[in-house]
Amino acid sequence: MDISPKVRLFVAQPLGGGRAVALDQAQAHYLLHVMRAGPGTMIALFNGRDGEWLARIDQVSKRGATLMVADQTRPQSAEPDLWLLFAPVKRARIDIIVEKAGELGVSELFPVFTRHTVMTRVNGERLSAIAIEASEQCERLSVPTVHEARSLEEMLAGWPAGRRLILLDEGGGGRPVAEAFADLGDGPAAILVGPEGGFAKSELDALRRLSFACPVDLGPRILRADTAVIAALSCFQAICGDWRVPPGALL
Amino acid sequence: MDISPKVRLFVAQPLGGGRAVALDQAQAHYLLHVMRAGPGTMIALFNGRDGEWLARIDQVSKRGATLMVADQTRPQSAEPDLWLLFAPVKRARIDIIVEKAGELGVSELFPVFTRHTVMTRVNGERLSAIAIEASEQCERLSVPTVHEARSLEEMLAGWPAGRRLILLDEGGGGRPVAEAFADLGDGPAAILVGPEGGFAKSELDALRRLSFACPVDLGPRILRADTAVIAALSCFQAICGDWRVPPGALL
Repeated sequence: MDISPKVRLFVAQPLGGGRAVALDQAQAHYLLHVMRAGPGTMIALFNGRDGEWLARIDQVSKRGATLMVADQTRPQSAEPDLWLLFAPVKRARIDIIVEKAGELGVSELFPVFTRHTVMTRVNGERLSAIAIEASEQCERLSVPTVHEARSLEEMLAGWPAGRRLILLDEGGGGRPVAEAFADLGDGPAAILVGPEGGFAKSELDALRRLSFACPVDLGPRILRADTAVIAALSCFQAICGDWRVPPGALL
Repeated sequence: MDISPKVRLFVAQPLGGGRAVALDQAQAHYLLHVMRAGPGTMIALFNGRDGEWLARIDQVSKRGATLMVADQTRPQSAEPDLWLLFAPVKRARIDIIVEKAGELGVSELFPVFTRHTVMTRVNGERLSAIAIEASEQCERLSVPTVHEARSLEEMLAGWPAGRRLILLDEGGGGRPVAEAFADLGDGPAAILVGPEGGFAKSELDALRRLSFACPVDLGPRILRADTAVIAALSCFQAICGDWRVPPGALL
């Protein structure tokens, strides 16, 4: 019996000692053929609510698998309240954005259409699958929600009170990112990145005038949309988020 | 005549007003078929030494193109002296590492073999091409050098005096990254990231003991190698590098 599980799976069902959990066909296939696990193998499960649990594989077939939940390995813990608003870009780069947002601790993902956004459709199901895989791989205890795509106007019209909007301002109108983040303080935040072609001039002017906007600058080189997302999220977690916690404090 | 060039090309030749520059077949193909440029179109050229110049396309054929250099648009300027040492990972992710390192201002790239590195060969030519394309796209005036792969031991044996080695310490032995970078000060630096399987325990212990090593921690989630590279480079540029310069100061 393997007591150091190499497999972590996200499930929808409640988790608790002695509970049986059924996996679907895709998860069973992954266990059996990718991870070469079988009956008796211990894996880790999480559902975003009940922490992380060890579970033993009871049965695996082509149509599914049954697990028996054993002990809790980690309790559910608070995570940064950090949204990412991103203009959909072409496939390879939108996949990178979602994978990295998952690893970097984003809580909710909002694809938003801006004036210069070229993409007109977003495959939410594929993006959700990428977000789940990223969470399974990076040891987080939750999966970011991937919301349906909407227009930036609609998103801003319903903006929640008290949430700062960090605008990645490619027009040079922002403060240097480390300086801006040092002044940001705690509390809910959202990062907004435009499409590869940038924001429209009028759009950027309007964004800069929003009372809850915090325009930041990411240096002298032009960053691709996916790079800008990862850069801003990393600086946020390092300066305002949960990378400030000394290692070991979370164990 | 297009006076706002959308194409930037890296060339090896010297640049100066009135000079003729010959492009090779691949660059000519790119101009003609990808960017749909032709005789008379203005493009931008840089070579890492002479700044950025406008040049007019004189002739384009299947075998090459000839350009006439006109005016300088930007002088060559100093850039951060920042190396990246990375364990080669599989193709898609090594390509992301090199592309993003280019965008994020790395000056030299060193693929290094560690104990748990699975890859045994590195296609330096492909990586150099990716680095050039990233530099052309992100408006930087230089291209990072991609060095031949070598062992980590060999790299450390010839370590230059005065260069800090920022160790991405996935074992929890590092200081929170923003705190560590705030104390780092100016001067030459290098960032080292291990392979997907992490450093070997003995290897990590030895790295931590190096007098020039600065172990840093990137938070509670396990980051993939490419994510860790981008995160560390972004935090470095934001806190110690050229993202501190207020926008506009470089124009």
